[in-house]
Amino acid sequence: MKNHKIREIIKQIEPMDRDVADETFVRFDHLSKPLKSLGRLEEIIAQAAGIYGRLNPAIDRKVIFLMAADHGVCVEGVSAYPSEITQKMVSNFLQGGAAINVLARHFGIEVIIVDMGIKGSTVISQGLMMKKIAQGTRNMAEESAMTQEMAEESILNGYRSFEEAYKKKKINLIGLGEMGIGNTTASSAIISLLTRTAVEKVVDQGTGIRLDQVKHKIEIIKKAIMVNTPDENDPVDILAKVGGFEIGGLVGCILGAASRRIPIVMDGLISGASSLLAVKIAPTISEYLFASHCSKERGHKIVLSYLNKKPMFDLEMHLGEGTGAAFGINVIEAGFKLLNQMADLKDLK
Amino acid sequence: MKNHKIREIIKQIEPMDRDVADETFVRFDHLSKPLKSLGRLEEIIAQAAGIYGRLNPAIDRKVIFLMAADHGVCVEGVSAYPSEITQKMVSNFLQGGAAINVLARHFGIEVIIVDMGIKGSTVISQGLMMKKIAQGTRNMAEESAMTQEMAEESILNGYRSFEEAYKKKKINLIGLGEMGIGNTTASSAIISLLTRTAVEKVVDQGTGIRLDQVKHKIEIIKKAIMVNTPDENDPVDILAKVGGFEIGGLVGCILGAASRRIPIVMDGLISGASSLLAVKIAPTISEYLFASHCSKERGHKIVLSYLNKKPMFDLEMHLGEGTGAAFGINVIEAGFKLLNQMADLKDLK
Repeated sequence: MKNHKIREIIKQIEPMDRDVADETFVRFDHLSKPLKSLGRLEEIIAQAAGIYGRLNPAIDRKVIFLMAADHGVCVEGVSAYPSEITQKMVSNFLQGGAAINVLARHFGIEVIIVDMGIKGSTVISQGLMMKKIAQGTRNMAEESAMTQEMAEESILNGYRSFEEAYKKKKINLIGLGEMGIGNTTASSAIISLLTRTAVEKVVDQGTGIRLDQVKHKIEIIKKAIMVNTPDENDPVDILAKVGGFEIGGLVGCILGAASRRIPIVMDGLISGASSLLAVKIAPTISEYLFASHCSKERGHKIVLSYLNKKPMFDLEMHLGEGTGAAFGINVIEAGFKLLNQMADLKDLK
Repeated sequence: MKNHKIREIIKQIEPMDRDVADETFVRFDHLSKPLKSLGRLEEIIAQAAGIYGRLNPAIDRKVIFLMAADHGVCVEGVSAYPSEITQKMVSNFLQGGAAINVLARHFGIEVIIVDMGIKGSTVISQGLMMKKIAQGTRNMAEESAMTQEMAEESILNGYRSFEEAYKKKKINLIGLGEMGIGNTTASSAIISLLTRTAVEKVVDQGTGIRLDQVKHKIEIIKKAIMVNTPDENDPVDILAKVGGFEIGGLVGCILGAASRRIPIVMDGLISGASSLLAVKIAPTISEYLFASHCSKERGHKIVLSYLNKKPMFDLEMHLGEGTGAAFGINVIEAGFKLLNQMADLKDLK
């Protein structure tokens, strides 16, 4: 990593505490239930406890970071919706009318909405965190989506948004959310490059494009990779050439959470691409990541398999915004309650 | 159905309202999200709305019926735990220290614990509903687990426990839970008979028995079927010969909920066997059933596939008590909030 600020953050990221993870399994074995009968939930909680370094963490502030930005590649007609929808959906988030707002209220999760690079003037609102890099990326099919400096700055701005929120009040658990028309195109390019998977195998109908549009999307991604020749070993180069500001923002957010020893719940395809970049920057980060659901997006399965993460549930959702992460956060919360509130087997009378 | 009381209940069970289910899909299509992007959650909510006959049901009382009973077949050494554990776990439920208590508190679900036939004197407690048929079943490997009258009475007692609770305050959503050492043996026999699957394919290591014990369990189930020759077309005969009181209780509970147009969330293997019996009694009931998770128990997959139900999540849990159902109830609750609280696409500005 060339950027020294990012290098400083990476240095703070420690591996999880495996002794605490082991202790968690022992504790589960003593509870009043058949051995191992909470299945993968026991593994999930052991991993999270290892991150916290304790079996009974307070989980009183859960936050979904919802990073929004626009994509120049939209002019190529890769999306089912026009760019303007990004801005409109952000207004919807601010008014509490989107899916993620409903789920966040249901699960008691805070949503922090970050303008990482929305096109047009966004409504300045108390609810919106301004970390704008530019008015959307450039068209990656023609040129680099952004400069190397912008890529680094988007990561740092993501990190700053996490830190600002964290310093106001300690955060215990985060979920990754995003909004950005065109961002499945950028994410698919990233996934293809980092997992060395053919673009054709990564892309499918996503949020509702037709089969002929899928073909077109594949061609555009291939063109973007050919035109820009990103260095597969350099995550910042990949982010700059075929990424997006909200993707960089999520990478920064992941770095921030990991440096503060906070479990990170992934969502769908875009959070998956961001996670791949973050793990490429600092491999230890993989220990901090939790899969929530398996999106209907084909590329998402590739990410989960590459990161060796099993999803908690599969409702074939593919909505983004952090909707899957919201369910996942709640599963982790429930799991810690089981670990800490259940009676011991030896105390049964 | 010979029993006229049960016949009267069946008469009250109506098919779901398909028009309302269709309306639900239309409503989802108008919300501020990509079309169909809530995936199977949209199908789940459409089905539930069809049951309620409305798109915006109140979901303010969610109940898990936790039916407990003992099994005479335990003397054959089919379980990892002794019969006494049933009673001890029921005490644990009453004191709020079991997994289901923790999850129910977390999700705001009420747990109604029913003594359907626990061996020994159970602690009489305000929290325990007494619907005892007998002090456990007889050993099905030697004789019929119960008489035909007891089988009918266990169904009716299950129905009564539902109705008593319902009449105190309207219930909107139920989950099926159970406790009974030995009940995977009874359930496996029922599943084998009703789905016409070889016993060897239904039984596996369950809550932690060794491979040689699996073989033994298979032999005992085969013996029970051979000794009793249950009529595969008569659910009451199957329940009497190789069933259990808590299984009959759950069947009655299912009949009650369906007759009141209330969605029913299944849990694992035992609730699966109960659901199969209920569907055999009244096929319309299938429309009222929701799969929550896929238990690690092999036979559970057979049930779900036979009933054509897809689970919402897979954490490889196999604990029973209604723990999977608790998560499933919460998913349905979240889904209705999405349907009713999200902004419309046309209202985006």
